[in-house]
Amino acid sequence: MGLFSKDIKTMNDLFVHQLQDIYYAEQQLVKALPRMADKANDKQLKQDFLFHLDETRAHVQRLEKVFEALGMTKTAVDCPAIDGIIEEADEVTSEVADKTVLDAALINAAQAAEHYEIARYGSLISWARQLGRSDISALLQKTLDEEKITDRKLTTLAEGRVNLRAAG
Amino acid sequence: MGLFSKDIKTMNDLFVHQLQDIYYAEQQLVKALPRMADKANDKQLKQDFLFHLDETRAHVQRLEKVFEALGMTKTAVDCPAIDGIIEEADEVTSEVADKTVLDAALINAAQAAEHYEIARYGSLISWARQLGRSDISALLQKTLDEEKITDRKLTTLAEGRVNLRAAG
Repeated sequence: MGLFSKDIKTMNDLFVHQLQDIYYAEQQLVKALPRMADKANDKQLKQDFLFHLDETRAHVQRLEKVFEALGMTKTAVDCPAIDGIIEEADEVTSEVADKTVLDAALINAAQAAEHYEIARYGSLISWARQLGRSDISALLQKTLDEEKITDRKLTTLAEGRVNLRAAG
Repeated sequence: MGLFSKDIKTMNDLFVHQLQDIYYAEQQLVKALPRMADKANDKQLKQDFLFHLDETRAHVQRLEKVFEALGMTKTAVDCPAIDGIIEEADEVTSEVADKTVLDAALINAAQAAEHYEIARYGSLISWARQLGRSDISALLQKTLDEEKITDRKLTTLAEGRVNLRAAG
Protein backbone atom coordinates (compact mmCIF):
# COMPACT_ATOMS: atom_id res chain seq x y z
CA MET A 1 0.00 0.00 0.00
CA GLY A 2 1.38 3.39 -0.93
CA LEU A 3 1.55 6.02 1.77
CA PHE A 4 -1.10 8.73 1.43
CA SER A 5 -2.68 6.96 -1.54
CA LYS A 6 -6.09 5.37 -1.24
CA ASP A 7 -5.32 2.01 -2.73
CA ILE A 8 -8.32 0.10 -1.35
CA LYS A 9 -11.13 0.86 -3.78
CA THR A 10 -13.24 -2.32 -3.68
CA MET A 11 -14.15 -5.08 -1.26
CA ASN A 12 -11.82 -7.31 -3.24
CA ASP A 13 -8.95 -4.87 -2.54
CA LEU A 14 -9.84 -4.92 1.16
CA PHE A 15 -9.94 -8.72 1.14
CA VAL A 16 -6.51 -8.92 -0.50
CA HIS A 17 -5.02 -6.36 1.90
CA GLN A 18 -6.25 -8.25 4.95
CA LEU A 19 -5.12 -11.54 3.41
CA GLN A 20 -1.61 -10.08 3.09
CA ASP A 21 -1.90 -8.85 6.68
CA ILE A 22 -2.84 -12.25 8.14
CA TYR A 23 -0.17 -13.88 5.94
CA TYR A 24 2.40 -11.69 7.71
CA ALA A 25 0.79 -12.40 11.11
CA GLU A 26 0.88 -16.19 10.67
CA GLN A 27 4.56 -15.99 9.67
CA GLN A 28 5.37 -13.97 12.79
CA LEU A 29 3.55 -16.56 14.91
CA VAL A 30 5.63 -19.34 13.34
CA LYS A 31 8.65 -17.45 14.74
CA ALA A 32 7.06 -16.66 18.14
CA LEU A 33 5.59 -20.07 19.04
CA PRO A 34 8.94 -21.90 19.52
CA ARG A 35 9.97 -19.16 22.01
CA MET A 36 6.70 -19.67 23.87
CA ALA A 37 7.04 -23.47 23.88
CA ASP A 38 10.57 -23.02 25.18
CA LYS A 39 9.40 -20.85 28.09
CA ALA A 40 6.48 -23.12 29.06
CA ASN A 41 6.93 -25.11 32.24
CA ASP A 42 3.77 -27.25 32.06
CA LYS A 43 4.40 -30.21 29.75
CA GLN A 44 0.92 -30.14 28.23
CA LEU A 45 1.25 -26.41 27.51
CA LYS A 46 4.62 -26.94 25.84
CA GLN A 47 3.08 -29.72 23.75
CA ASP A 48 0.04 -27.56 22.87
CA PHE A 49 2.32 -24.75 21.65
CA LEU A 50 4.35 -27.15 19.50
CA PHE A 51 1.18 -28.72 18.09
CA HIS A 52 -0.15 -25.27 17.26
CA LEU A 53 3.20 -24.37 15.67
CA ASP A 54 2.62 -27.21 13.18
CA GLU A 55 -0.94 -25.99 12.61
CA THR A 56 0.32 -22.44 12.10
CA ARG A 57 2.81 -23.61 9.47
CA ALA A 58 -0.14 -25.28 7.72
CA HIS A 59 -2.13 -22.01 7.99
CA VAL A 60 0.67 -20.23 6.14
CA GLN A 61 0.48 -22.83 3.37
CA ARG A 62 -3.30 -22.57 3.27
CA LEU A 63 -3.01 -18.81 2.75
CA GLU A 64 -0.59 -19.50 -0.09
CA LYS A 65 -3.31 -21.67 -1.66
CA VAL A 66 -5.70 -18.71 -1.39
CA PHE A 67 -3.22 -16.43 -3.19
CA GLU A 68 -2.90 -19.13 -5.83
CA ALA A 69 -6.70 -19.45 -6.17
CA LEU A 70 -6.82 -15.68 -6.72
CA GLY A 71 -4.05 -15.89 -9.32
CA MET A 72 -1.91 -13.61 -7.20
CA THR A 73 1.68 -13.63 -5.99
CA LYS A 74 1.87 -14.32 -2.26
CA THR A 75 2.79 -11.10 -0.48
CA ALA A 76 2.87 -10.07 3.17
CA VAL A 77 2.19 -6.54 4.43
CA ASP A 78 3.30 -5.28 7.82
CA CYS A 79 0.77 -5.91 10.54
CA PRO A 80 1.37 -3.58 13.51
CA ALA A 81 -1.37 -5.39 15.47
CA ILE A 82 0.35 -8.78 15.60
CA ASP A 83 3.72 -7.08 16.13
CA GLY A 84 2.23 -5.32 19.16
CA ILE A 85 0.64 -8.51 20.48
CA ILE A 86 3.93 -10.43 20.18
CA GLU A 87 5.98 -7.53 21.61
CA GLU A 88 3.65 -7.44 24.61
CA ALA A 89 3.84 -11.22 25.00
CA ASP A 90 7.64 -11.09 25.07
CA GLU A 91 7.66 -8.13 27.46
CA VAL A 92 5.21 -9.53 29.99
CA THR A 93 6.58 -13.07 29.99
CA SER A 94 10.13 -11.77 30.49
CA GLU A 95 8.92 -9.95 33.62
CA VAL A 96 7.67 -13.12 35.32
CA ALA A 97 9.89 -14.64 37.99
CA ASP A 98 7.81 -17.69 38.95
CA LYS A 99 7.50 -20.54 36.46
CA THR A 100 3.91 -21.49 37.33
CA VAL A 101 2.85 -17.83 36.98
CA LEU A 102 4.79 -17.73 33.70
CA ASP A 103 2.56 -20.51 32.33
CA ALA A 104 -0.54 -18.44 33.13
CA ALA A 105 1.05 -15.42 31.42
CA LEU A 106 1.98 -17.50 28.35
CA ILE A 107 -1.60 -18.76 27.98
CA ASN A 108 -2.89 -15.20 28.28
CA ALA A 109 -0.42 -14.03 25.62
CA ALA A 110 -1.27 -16.88 23.25
CA GLN A 111 -5.00 -16.24 23.62
CA ALA A 112 -4.52 -12.60 22.58
CA ALA A 113 -2.91 -13.86 19.35
CA GLU A 114 -5.65 -16.48 18.83
CA HIS A 115 -8.36 -13.87 19.27
CA TYR A 116 -6.65 -11.53 16.81
CA GLU A 117 -6.72 -14.32 14.26
CA ILE A 118 -10.32 -15.27 15.08
CA ALA A 119 -11.39 -11.67 14.37
CA ARG A 120 -9.42 -11.45 11.13
CA TYR A 121 -10.42 -14.84 9.71
CA GLY A 122 -14.04 -14.17 10.65
CA SER A 123 -14.10 -11.08 8.41
CA LEU A 124 -12.11 -12.72 5.61
CA ILE A 125 -14.60 -15.62 5.50
CA SER A 126 -17.61 -13.27 5.39
CA TRP A 127 -15.98 -11.20 2.65
CA ALA A 128 -14.98 -14.24 0.56
CA ARG A 129 -18.59 -15.48 0.71
CA GLN A 130 -19.87 -12.05 -0.27
CA LEU A 131 -17.44 -12.03 -3.19
CA GLY A 132 -18.80 -15.40 -4.37
CA ARG A 133 -15.63 -17.33 -3.48
CA SER A 134 -16.99 -20.19 -1.37
CA ASP A 135 -13.89 -22.21 -2.34
CA ILE A 136 -11.76 -19.65 -0.49
CA SER A 137 -14.12 -19.19 2.45
CA ALA A 138 -14.11 -22.99 2.95
CA LEU A 139 -10.30 -23.04 3.09
CA LEU A 140 -10.17 -20.17 5.59
CA GLN A 141 -12.94 -21.74 7.69
CA LYS A 142 -10.65 -24.72 8.39
CA THR A 143 -8.06 -22.38 9.86
CA LEU A 144 -10.65 -20.44 11.87
CA ASP A 145 -11.94 -23.70 13.37
CA GLU A 146 -8.41 -24.64 14.44
CA GLU A 147 -7.80 -21.21 16.01
CA LYS A 148 -11.03 -21.55 18.00
CA ILE A 149 -10.13 -25.07 19.15
CA THR A 150 -6.68 -23.83 20.24
CA ASP A 151 -8.26 -20.98 22.19
CA ARG A 152 -10.67 -23.34 23.98
CA LYS A 153 -7.89 -25.83 24.70
CA LEU A 154 -5.86 -23.07 26.36
CA THR A 155 -8.84 -21.97 28.49
CA THR A 156 -9.39 -25.57 29.62
CA LEU A 157 -5.73 -25.97 30.54
CA ALA A 158 -5.67 -22.61 32.38
CA GLU A 159 -8.82 -23.25 34.36
CA GLY A 160 -8.17 -26.95 34.90
CA ARG A 161 -4.62 -26.72 36.23
CA VAL A 162 -2.34 -23.83 35.31
CA ASN A 163 -4.16 -21.05 37.21
CA LEU A 164 -4.54 -23.23 40.30
CA ARG A 165 -0.79 -23.91 40.37
CA ALA A 166 0.03 -20.28 39.64
CA ALA A 167 -2.11 -19.09 42.56
CA GLY A 168 -0.83 -21.84 44.89
CA MET B 1 7.46 -2.61 35.42
CA GLY B 2 11.21 -2.11 35.64
CA LEU B 3 13.25 -3.03 32.61
CA PHE B 4 15.23 -6.24 33.03
CA SER B 5 13.76 -6.84 36.47
CA LYS B 6 11.37 -9.70 37.09
CA ASP B 7 8.64 -7.84 38.89
CA ILE B 8 5.83 -10.38 38.40
CA LYS B 9 6.35 -12.88 41.19
CA THR B 10 2.81 -14.05 41.97
CA MET B 11 -0.50 -14.53 40.18
CA ASN B 12 -1.70 -11.41 41.98
CA ASP B 13 1.18 -9.45 40.40
CA LEU B 14 0.22 -10.83 36.99
CA PHE B 15 -3.43 -9.90 37.58
CA VAL B 16 -2.48 -6.33 38.55
CA HIS B 17 -0.15 -5.95 35.56
CA GLN B 18 -2.82 -7.06 33.11
CA LEU B 19 -5.40 -4.88 34.87
CA GLN B 20 -3.11 -1.89 34.29
CA ASP B 21 -2.68 -3.01 30.68
CA ILE B 22 -6.42 -3.21 29.95
CA TYR B 23 -6.92 0.10 31.82
CA TYR B 24 -4.56 1.69 29.29
CA ALA B 25 -6.26 -0.14 26.39
CA GLU B 26 -9.76 1.03 27.36
CA GLN B 27 -8.50 4.61 27.60
CA GLN B 28 -6.97 4.39 24.12
CA LEU B 29 -10.27 3.04 22.78
CA VAL B 30 -12.13 6.01 24.33
CA LYS B 31 -9.87 8.16 22.11
CA ALA B 32 -10.16 5.95 19.00
CA LEU B 33 -13.92 5.33 18.91
CA PRO B 34 -14.94 8.93 18.08
CA ARG B 35 -12.56 8.80 15.06
CA MET B 36 -14.19 5.56 13.95
CA ALA B 37 -17.73 6.91 14.43
CA ASP B 38 -16.69 9.95 12.44
CA LYS B 39 -15.47 7.84 9.52
CA ALA B 40 -18.52 5.53 9.47
CA ASN B 41 -20.93 6.03 6.59
CA ASP B 42 -23.67 3.62 7.68
CA LYS B 43 -25.90 5.36 10.24
CA GLN B 44 -26.38 2.25 12.38
CA LEU B 45 -22.62 1.66 12.44
CA LYS B 46 -21.98 5.26 13.51
CA GLN B 47 -24.60 4.84 16.25
CA ASP B 48 -23.11 1.51 17.37
CA PHE B 49 -19.66 3.09 17.69
CA LEU B 50 -21.04 5.98 19.74
CA PHE B 51 -23.04 3.60 21.94
CA HIS B 52 -19.90 1.53 22.50
CA LEU B 53 -17.94 4.70 23.28
CA ASP B 54 -20.30 5.29 26.22
CA GLU B 55 -19.89 1.65 27.28
CA THR B 56 -16.10 1.96 26.99
CA ARG B 57 -16.13 5.03 29.27
CA ALA B 58 -18.10 2.93 31.76
CA HIS B 59 -15.52 0.12 31.39
CA VAL B 60 -12.79 2.58 32.40
CA GLN B 61 -14.79 3.51 35.51
CA ARG B 62 -15.43 -0.16 36.28
CA LEU B 63 -11.68 -0.82 36.17
CA GLU B 64 -11.19 2.09 38.59
CA LYS B 65 -13.62 0.33 40.95
CA VAL B 66 -11.44 -2.78 40.71
CA PHE B 67 -8.32 -0.77 41.63
CA GLU B 68 -10.31 0.63 44.55
CA ALA B 69 -11.46 -2.84 45.63
CA LEU B 70 -7.79 -3.89 45.63
CA GLY B 71 -6.83 -0.81 47.67
CA MET B 72 -4.55 0.30 44.85
CA THR B 73 -3.93 3.53 43.00
CA LYS B 74 -5.27 3.36 39.45
CA THR B 75 -2.33 3.10 37.07
CA ALA B 76 -2.03 2.37 33.36
CA VAL B 77 0.92 0.59 31.76
CA ASP B 78 1.75 0.80 28.07
CA CYS B 79 0.03 -1.84 25.99
CA PRO B 80 1.83 -2.34 22.66
CA ALA B 81 -0.94 -4.73 21.55
CA ILE B 82 -3.76 -2.20 21.61
CA ASP B 83 -1.44 0.47 20.20
CA GLY B 84 -0.71 -1.87 17.28
CA ILE B 85 -4.38 -2.71 16.77
CA ILE B 86 -5.36 0.99 16.72
CA GLU B 87 -2.39 1.93 14.50
CA GLU B 88 -3.42 -0.75 12.02
CA ALA B 89 -7.06 0.39 12.17
CA ASP B 90 -6.03 3.97 11.36
CA GLU B 91 -3.65 2.84 8.59
CA VAL B 92 -6.07 0.51 6.81
CA THR B 93 -9.11 2.76 7.07
CA SER B 94 -7.11 5.72 5.72
CA GLU B 95 -6.27 3.62 2.63
CA VAL B 96 -9.92 3.04 1.70
CA ALA B 97 -11.33 5.18 -1.10
CA ASP B 98 -14.93 3.89 -1.19
CA LYS B 99 -17.24 4.72 1.70
CA THR B 100 -19.16 1.42 1.71
CA VAL B 101 -15.86 -0.51 1.70
CA LEU B 102 -14.69 1.78 4.50
CA ASP B 103 -17.60 0.62 6.67
CA ALA B 104 -16.53 -3.01 6.17
CA ALA B 105 -12.94 -2.06 7.09
CA LEU B 106 -14.12 -0.17 10.19
CA ILE B 107 -16.10 -3.17 11.42
CA ASN B 108 -13.08 -5.41 10.84
CA ALA B 109 -10.87 -2.98 12.79
CA ALA B 110 -13.34 -2.68 15.66
CA GLN B 111 -13.69 -6.45 15.93
CA ALA B 112 -9.91 -6.82 16.32
CA ALA B 113 -10.11 -4.48 19.32
CA GLU B 114 -13.16 -6.31 20.74
CA HIS B 115 -11.41 -9.66 20.45
CA TYR B 116 -8.31 -8.29 22.17
CA GLU B 117 -10.49 -7.24 25.07
CA ILE B 118 -12.41 -10.53 25.09
CA ALA B 119 -9.11 -12.41 25.46
CA ARG B 120 -7.80 -10.12 28.20
CA TYR B 121 -11.01 -9.95 30.25
CA GLY B 122 -11.40 -13.73 29.94
CA SER B 123 -8.05 -14.29 31.66
CA LEU B 124 -8.61 -11.53 34.24
CA ILE B 125 -11.93 -13.10 35.26
CA SER B 126 -10.39 -16.58 35.60
CA TRP B 127 -7.52 -15.19 37.64
CA ALA B 128 -9.78 -13.12 39.92
CA ARG B 129 -11.85 -16.23 40.67
CA GLN B 130 -8.71 -18.25 41.35
CA LEU B 131 -7.54 -15.49 43.72
CA GLY B 132 -10.84 -15.71 45.61
CA ARG B 133 -12.09 -12.31 44.43
CA SER B 134 -15.52 -13.14 43.06
CA ASP B 135 -16.55 -9.50 43.69
CA ILE B 136 -13.94 -8.43 41.12
CA SER B 137 -14.64 -11.24 38.65
CA ALA B 138 -18.35 -10.28 38.72
CA LEU B 139 -17.50 -6.66 37.86
CA LEU B 140 -15.22 -7.68 34.99
CA GLN B 141 -17.78 -10.19 33.71
CA LYS B 142 -20.21 -7.31 33.03
CA THR B 143 -17.64 -5.69 30.76
CA LEU B 144 -16.79 -8.97 29.03
CA ASP B 145 -20.49 -9.55 28.31
CA GLU B 146 -20.73 -6.09 26.73
CA GLU B 147 -17.64 -6.67 24.58
CA LYS B 148 -19.10 -9.95 23.32
CA ILE B 149 -22.46 -8.31 22.55
CA THR B 150 -20.66 -5.52 20.65
CA ASP B 151 -18.69 -8.07 18.63
CA ARG B 152 -21.86 -10.01 17.71
CA LYS B 153 -23.71 -6.79 16.84
CA LEU B 154 -20.91 -5.84 14.45
CA THR B 155 -20.98 -9.28 12.80
CA THR B 156 -24.77 -9.00 12.34
CA LEU B 157 -24.44 -5.55 10.80
CA ALA B 158 -21.59 -6.66 8.51
CA GLU B 159 -23.32 -9.79 7.29
CA GLY B 160 -26.79 -8.25 7.17
CA ARG B 161 -25.98 -5.13 5.18
CA VAL B 162 -22.51 -3.59 5.21
CA ASN B 163 -20.67 -6.37 3.31
CA LEU B 164 -23.42 -6.58 0.72
CA ARG B 165 -23.19 -2.85 0.00
CA ALA B 166 -19.39 -2.92 0.02
CA ALA B 167 -19.35 -5.71 -2.57
CA GLY B 168 -22.07 -4.06 -4.65
